[in-house]
Amino acid sequence: MSRDGVLSSLLQGRGSWASGEEIAANLGVTRAAVWKQIRLLRASGYEIEASPGKGYRLVVQPDSLRPEAIYCGLGTEFVGKVIHYRPVVGSTNDVARKMARGAEEGTVILAEVQTEGRGRMGRRWQSPPGGVWMSVILKPDIPPALASRINIAVGLAVARTLSHLYGLEAGIKWPNDLTVRDKKICGILTEMRAEIDRLDYVVVGIGINANMDPDRLDVEGEITSISRELGGEISRTELVQKLLWDIEKAYIEVNSSFPKAHAEWSARSSTLGRRVRIVSQRNEFEGTAVELDRYGALRIRRDDGEIVRVLAGDCVHLRPAEKEEEEGASATSG
Amino acid sequence: MSRDGVLSSLLQGRGSWASGEEIAANLGVTRAAVWKQIRLLRASGYEIEASPGKGYRLVVQPDSLRPEAIYCGLGTEFVGKVIHYRPVVGSTNDVARKMARGAEEGTVILAEVQTEGRGRMGRRWQSPPGGVWMSVILKPDIPPALASRINIAVGLAVARTLSHLYGLEAGIKWPNDLTVRDKKICGILTEMRAEIDRLDYVVVGIGINANMDPDRLDVEGEITSISRELGGEISRTELVQKLLWDIEKAYIEVNSSFPKAHAEWSARSSTLGRRVRIVSQRNEFEGTAVELDRYGALRIRRDDGEIVRVLAGDCVHLRPAEKEEEEGASATSG
Repeated sequence: MSRDGVLSSLLQGRGSWASGEEIAANLGVTRAAVWKQIRLLRASGYEIEASPGKGYRLVVQPDSLRPEAIYCGLGTEFVGKVIHYRPVVGSTNDVARKMARGAEEGTVILAEVQTEGRGRMGRRWQSPPGGVWMSVILKPDIPPALASRINIAVGLAVARTLSHLYGLEAGIKWPNDLTVRDKKICGILTEMRAEIDRLDYVVVGIGINANMDPDRLDVEGEITSISRELGGEISRTELVQKLLWDIEKAYIEVNSSFPKAHAEWSARSSTLGRRVRIVSQRNEFEGTAVELDRYGALRIRRDDGEIVRVLAGDCVHLRPAEKEEEEGASATSG
Repeated sequence: MSRDGVLSSLLQGRGSWASGEEIAANLGVTRAAVWKQIRLLRASGYEIEASPGKGYRLVVQPDSLRPEAIYCGLGTEFVGKVIHYRPVVGSTNDVARKMARGAEEGTVILAEVQTEGRGRMGRRWQSPPGGVWMSVILKPDIPPALASRINIAVGLAVARTLSHLYGLEAGIKWPNDLTVRDKKICGILTEMRAEIDRLDYVVVGIGINANMDPDRLDVEGEITSISRELGGEISRTELVQKLLWDIEKAYIEVNSSFPKAHAEWSARSSTLGRRVRIVSQRNEFEGTAVELDRYGALRIRRDDGEIVRVLAGDCVHLRPAEKEEEEGASATSG
């Protein structure tokens, strides 16, 4: 027996008393085994009250990403129905890719720490304790040319979660970051395996700076965290639950009513309407970001008036937008 | 020492005499070792003449896909500079995918037999002796939305090779087959690993029915082979050499001058101008194929006049095209 059974029993009780006898009977173990697991849970930071006549009840649970805590109260249909939890992992995306073919759609990998977290183009992504380092396995029935929709869905989902739970209005920075006050708070790394016209699977890696001090990271560019913005720590359990729910919802939306999702992405974008510098392996130029097209490409109006489509590259935000912001915000699917 | 060194020495001689002493010295082995390898080569079907005063010379080589035979006279810059040869393999694409990350661009896997050859959507692909079962690892600096260009390049390359070597004018059947007299002679399976905006690698599997009796295969749909069409067997060594050359050329073309490659693909297409039935997981409809767009999607004019873009699915050719063929053949990049 693992601690998970006992923890689940306590979580289901939602703070009410559960007798050791009942827990033991439900799990098919001895009362002594239950008691042993209670001690281990206490050692992990769970505050569990024990009373000879009443049994056990959970008083305080630590900020943890353990699946039992997340399953309890998770309202999704398929995202997060299976969660693989690892205290320490190289990269959750690597773990997810290895199990993706045989995994159910919506399977999630969660880790407390990544030792080899990656961003786009193989860049390093620092993943210390306190963050949410997570990968979701998706198997959309779309061709790879439309895979950017998954990126759009997850970007939207993170923005909605941060807004609804914490009132943080994060901007979506093309192609894959979320920023608060122009400081990075979340990065998304979407990887896929595909035939030319059919996705085998998509693995979406999501790194959120949740409860952590951004000043202690050695990162290029300005970053922030949820706890820094709010001035206090949040429940990562709640954050992950809401996020999984928002991911499922946005994922269904981009596949069923893309123009609506696209319009919201555009409204939440911090890139559209902005003066930007595009840096790719091939060239570098400046212009104004005017629209995201249906393939996830950014349309840039260069200073000579020409519209350039950018499918890949880094996008540096230059001075804040002025008049042109309206145009970007009202852009619709091409 | 492997047989490869001795075989390479004989092949480089192009039918002239090479002394056992020289071969041994060049390879850093004893003359007895050379003699042993000569006997092994003879056992594999190589006819090697031996003369006490002159040494050895290669008179007849078997129809083989052994890399030493293919390297000799291969004019490419990078495609096929490294060839991994396996007499029997599950699937060359699987082997290629496993080694792709660390492999040089242009690395090739060749097999005499595939026991688990695959076509699109996990379909079985019969791969008996006599065919060419090959995978090429490519690492184009393009986003996945443009990966269909690789499919276009390889389709073009196979068509050119069959035309130049054998006078066989193969039609390219969207998305990935080549046909002669409407019978399948080659299939292409392109798989990739990618981030949203960057390809890690593409593995292109190419199966060509070369020297084989199509009647002996248990396959749905009509198929043919090069030997059936020509009434005699061909040199697979020569076929692979020319094909690798054509792949390299077409690969460079689609990335440097796509409209030209697109126009030739359109001219060689047996689908454009044709009445077709599109069968996908979502729906099924008929119409006339009018154009391949720049993302590799097929544009179909339905009977109600609406133009539908098809990114994925099966395409069944119905009755031969009549008037509309011209329009299809002259279609250009959108």
